Amino acid sequence: MVPAGEAVDAALEDLAGHLDGDDVVVDGGNSHFEDSVRRAERTAAAYLDCGTSGGPAGAQLGFSLMVGGPEWAYRELEPVFDAVATGPDGHDRMGPAGSGHYVKMVHNGVEYALMQAYGEGFELLAEGRYDLDLEAVARTWNNGAVIRSWLLELCEEAFREEGSDLGTVADHVAGGSTGTWTVQEALAQEVPVPLIYAALSERFDSRATGDGPGRFSRRLANRLRYGFGRHEIARREG
Amino acid sequence: MVPAGEAVDAALEDLAGHLDGDDVVVDGGNSHFEDSVRRAERTAAAYLDCGTSGGPAGAQLGFSLMVGGPEWAYRELEPVFDAVATGPDGHDRMGPAGSGHYVKMVHNGVEYALMQAYGEGFELLAEGRYDLDLEAVARTWNNGAVIRSWLLELCEEAFREEGSDLGTVADHVAGGSTGTWTVQEALAQEVPVPLIYAALSERFDSRATGDGPGRFSRRLANRLRYGFGRHEIARREG
Amino acid sequence: MVPAGEAVDAALEDLAGHLDGDDVVVDGGNSHFEDSVRRAERTAAAYLDCGTSGGPAGAQLGFSLMVGGPEWAYRELEPVFDAVATGPDGHDRMGPAGSGHYVKMVHNGVEYALMQAYGEGFELLAEGRYDLDLEAVARTWNNGAVIRSWLLELCEEAFREEGSDLGTVADHVAGGSTGTWTVQEALAQEVPVPLIYAALSERFDSRATGDGPGRFSRRLANRLRYGFGRHEIARREG
Amino acid sequence: MVPAGEAVDAALEDLAGHLDGDDVVVDGGNSHFEDSVRRAERTAAAYLDCGTSGGPAGAQLGFSLMVGGPEWAYRELEPVFDAVATGPDGHDRMGPAGSGHYVKMVHNGVEYALMQAYGEGFELLAEGRYDLDLEAVARTWNNGAVIRSWLLELCEEAFREEGSDLGTVADHVAGGSTGTWTVQEALAQEVPVPLIYAALSERFDSRATGDGPGRFSRRLANRLRYGFGRHEIARREG
Repeated sequence: MVPAGEAVDAALEDLAGHLDGDDVVVDGGNSHFEDSVRRAERTAAAYLDCGTSGGPAGAQLGFSLMVGGPEWAYRELEPVFDAVATGPDGHDRMGPAGSGHYVKMVHNGVEYALMQAYGEGFELLAEGRYDLDLEAVARTWNNGAVIRSWLLELCEEAFREEGSDLGTVADHVAGGSTGTWTVQEALAQEVPVPLIYAALSERFDSRATGDGPGRFSRRLANRLRYGFGRHEIARREG
Repeated sequence: MVPAGEAVDAALEDLAGHLDGDDVVVDGGNSHFEDSVRRAERTAAAYLDCGTSGGPAGAQLGFSLMVGGPEWAYRELEPVFDAVATGPDGHDRMGPAGSGHYVKMVHNGVEYALMQAYGEGFELLAEGRYDLDLEAVARTWNNGAVIRSWLLELCEEAFREEGSDLGTVADHVAGGSTGTWTVQEALAQEVPVPLIYAALSERFDSRATGDGPGRFSRRLANRLRYGFGRHEIARREG
Repeated sequence: MVPAGEAVDAALEDLAGHLDGDDVVVDGGNSHFEDSVRRAERTAAAYLDCGTSGGPAGAQLGFSLMVGGPEWAYRELEPVFDAVATGPDGHDRMGPAGSGHYVKMVHNGVEYALMQAYGEGFELLAEGRYDLDLEAVARTWNNGAVIRSWLLELCEEAFREEGSDLGTVADHVAGGSTGTWTVQEALAQEVPVPLIYAALSERFDSRATGDGPGRFSRRLANRLRYGFGRHEIARREG
Repeated sequence: MVPAGEAVDAALEDLAGHLDGDDVVVDGGNSHFEDSVRRAERTAAAYLDCGTSGGPAGAQLGFSLMVGGPEWAYRELEPVFDAVATGPDGHDRMGPAGSGHYVKMVHNGVEYALMQAYGEGFELLAEGRYDLDLEAVARTWNNGAVIRSWLLELCEEAFREEGSDLGTVADHVAGGSTGTWTVQEALAQEVPVPLIYAALSERFDSRATGDGPGRFSRRLANRLRYGFGRHEIARREG
């Protein structure tokens, strides 16, 4: 379990002299699936790419493990996966090399969209016609509603800890690499993913609008309204 | 519990002579919140608008109840709500008249987006680089992954019952009224809801493309590519 | 030509005693088409709803006039329309009452999308890999490129007058009523308009992110990333 | 002027023995800008990447030329560019190697969005409340309206030649590579381009829904509505 990227290649290089075909290497990070395919080809050992979901909470609750690579290697490590995952149903072999990280990549794309979908609902409730206790809304939904989920339990926790107005939590969403990979792969497969794309765009937008002049496209639209309609141009303070 | 729309008004009219201020009327359907506000004002009885989620499965598992209306009336019916809901956490008073159906409307808008978000992920997996068992993917995710949810359990069930390719299930999504109301309200509040809108649009699109000539906007784009680039026009068979 | 809204009804009331069936009233503003249908029904005179595009520049260049209402009334006023419009091709009768404002409403929805489409392109050029003179880009495009248009000429003018970085022009797009009507009508007709909707959402977003805590949906996403992944929460300064 | 892709590399290889630093090679096709950067580095001659817009009609009307590469080479070919372009304003040097194709790539992304924006407007008019002559609408708009453009003139031509219902024109939009590149670059620059993305998605969607079972995401949504609500599952005919 090392961070994705060059650290994985470095770790594999360190191991290189000590590995042969009986050994099994597991990459449990968020590597790009194409890197995993490449590494599996170049490593003397059997290589398992293991998409891991559950976050730090998974250490108590058990993780969800999506594993790609040789069947025999997966079988050999099943006792380990049983222990690390929520249980036997919390891990499975998805397919050959790369498939574990591929499924995890898509998992994360869906995750972005789910977070933003709940966010849109709560934003509408926060801005809407009623003065609502959003923790109470989330708790009521988590008990029996169609949209109940672990992410909604985390929303409930967030409102309990931050307040119904989210207090000082900033409009700035970090991260985005696995979501970007998901959209890139969807482009390659010509699969429309408008919700995942919109969720990713909201992250980019949150990072563009905090400081500085803001989004160029909208600044141009502001100016164009003057161009054709002589509507007053909103200006930033100097 | 009567279907939303004129049936609610008809039922209220039937009851009109028998109601006074000590009585409590509960509308547990998917009425528009503005209808509920209007009905609450016109009814002699206390009026509770009760957004109800959980579907037929809720009859066993308990429902999630979002209630709007007078505090005293909600308190008086608490034993009933305790019995119908998943328990004391499965119901709550959201606020005054209309707020129960308002919160339920937004719940449904979020529901559309969640369904479509999972759909995008599984579509990418179905069209993508690996030959995957989508029931196994959904089961692995439901055991410990960040995106686990009741809707994802229903995806797992769908793949188990229909197969990983969804068999004969058609590309035709019915319904849409509560999602439409959600977008209308978001327009009124000037709250961007791009995911909910995209999910609703996919429903409209699924209904436009089944029979007939298809989506006009894309037919025009097809023709325009000939207009500026002399690209061949794809034609329907006569 | 009075501003849309109650002023139109007030003007009609003032005229009411003086109108009979031989008179023709023209509403050249941006009234909602349903208001125009209502007014046409209630007015003794023939009523023409006349969508007018071209902005203040139209006073020199001639306007584009989309007219709804009785054929005979349109014919009677043709000399006037010839003079006000760019010429005989700059006006036409779209159909019965309301159709002029209906077509103008859709025109404006398209206008929002076109402005934002150019804005996205220029934003990518402004943020992208090359240091470009955007006025020169716009001028080159306006001379022979597929995307040449009057709005692109206005972009060229904007970059000439404000500079390639748009100077002090703020990220704040006002307006939105006709775009909102377009999306509402598209919902009623179940026609997907994702581009028009996205363009309208950018306006709402530009108004939500200038001051205050920003967009609630993204603040929640920020917090949820801590919830499941213990990623640091970005906080606003107190 | 050879088709983009391997043909460009093949042509360059053929020329390789005959080129030195005084020669100028111009690639007037739709090459990816990164290929142009690579080729410029490897070619002995000066290399100009020349984004070309205007389509076959440009042969009469003159093209719009966006040129990247060394200043001296651009200056040397100015007489040629004057002749091929609409005139001196129809070509310009955007910047160093690759910038011509970069600007052309973004041009095409914008083009996709403009086409789809007009398409949405005409779709709403075609499906909406009035029986409209869409050629007359387009002609009226092209004479003085804010949204007038060359693409709108091509819409007018399309309705004149195909009829207001577009006759046998199919819902199938081919192409998409330059639009895909635009979105990929926007992802790399973290610039939100929701309209360009939506326009590209409509192309993918038009190709997915013609034959076969349709879009997987919506088939799953159809099935999930049964899962939680026991709504009838729409099925394809066997």
